[in-house]
Amino acid sequence: MPQEYPAVLYLEDLQIGQKIKSGTIKVTQAEIIAFAAKFDPQPFHLDPAAAQTSFFGGLVASGWHTASLTMRLLIESGMPMAGGIIGLNVAIKWVKPVRPDDLLMVESEIMAIEPFNNRADCGAVTVKSTTRNQDGADVQELTARLLAFRKIPVKS
Amino acid sequence: MPQEYPAVLYLEDLQIGQKIKSGTIKVTQAEIIAFAAKFDPQPFHLDPAAAQTSFFGGLVASGWHTASLTMRLLIESGMPMAGGIIGLNVAIKWVKPVRPDDLLMVESEIMAIEPFNNRADCGAVTVKSTTRNQDGADVQELTARLLAFRKIPVKS
Repeated sequence: MPQEYPAVLYLEDLQIGQKIKSGTIKVTQAEIIAFAAKFDPQPFHLDPAAAQTSFFGGLVASGWHTASLTMRLLIESGMPMAGGIIGLNVAIKWVKPVRPDDLLMVESEIMAIEPFNNRADCGAVTVKSTTRNQDGADVQELTARLLAFRKIPVKS
Repeated sequence: MPQEYPAVLYLEDLQIGQKIKSGTIKVTQAEIIAFAAKFDPQPFHLDPAAAQTSFFGGLVASGWHTASLTMRLLIESGMPMAGGIIGLNVAIKWVKPVRPDDLLMVESEIMAIEPFNNRADCGAVTVKSTTRNQDGADVQELTARLLAFRKIPVKS
């Protein structure tokens, strides 16, 4: 896959080892606090002063905020699956905290492609999506098994 | 653990097989759409009419929205870890879609407790948190490895 962003991706477009880079998204302190207030109300996500004395030594984004921003990047440019990104199951490892004003991007790699025997129109694809900050440091590793629709259904 | 909600939980308070139920939270159509507009802009999360003809046959919450609401329930009542809920890694399976006006709750079970050899003040706990809707149907299974702080650090 070249550097320009792909159009929609069907099962037939995917190859094991293929890599796709997303665009970027910046996360502000106000957004980190707003997300935390709704979904993850803990001092190290809500209050810059309280966060100083926490485990993280400063305000950090909720891991669920990082995961949600990763999803946005995947949809917009990083993994534009035909029919949408429909996750069956995922595993996430939070490697390093995301802090205010970090600029995030995602690089995805196709790890496995799995045609379904009982469905002619789709299969599953396993994608490892690594979210990195502006310094190139990994902040999150997401391995997701997604539905992948076929451009041309298999004849039964 | 009896039915009343626990206060904060230290490593010493946890036992394998222990179960903890959260309170409940309702998710509205407006909240589903607002979350999707920010983080998961796909027709089946954004547009009730377009969602009718989608894979899901109607508007459904983003899986990341379900995960984020689960986190809120865990913090508020379902798994109130002393020092906060700090996830090291997680696995998520989305079993069934969450739809407008679903009332969610989480039941968590302690699966493993792992003292750290190199830290006197904490260890890790593996928790399986099942999110259910108002009909008692499982909508999400989250298995998380969390930091668990000790009430009394181990002497070295």
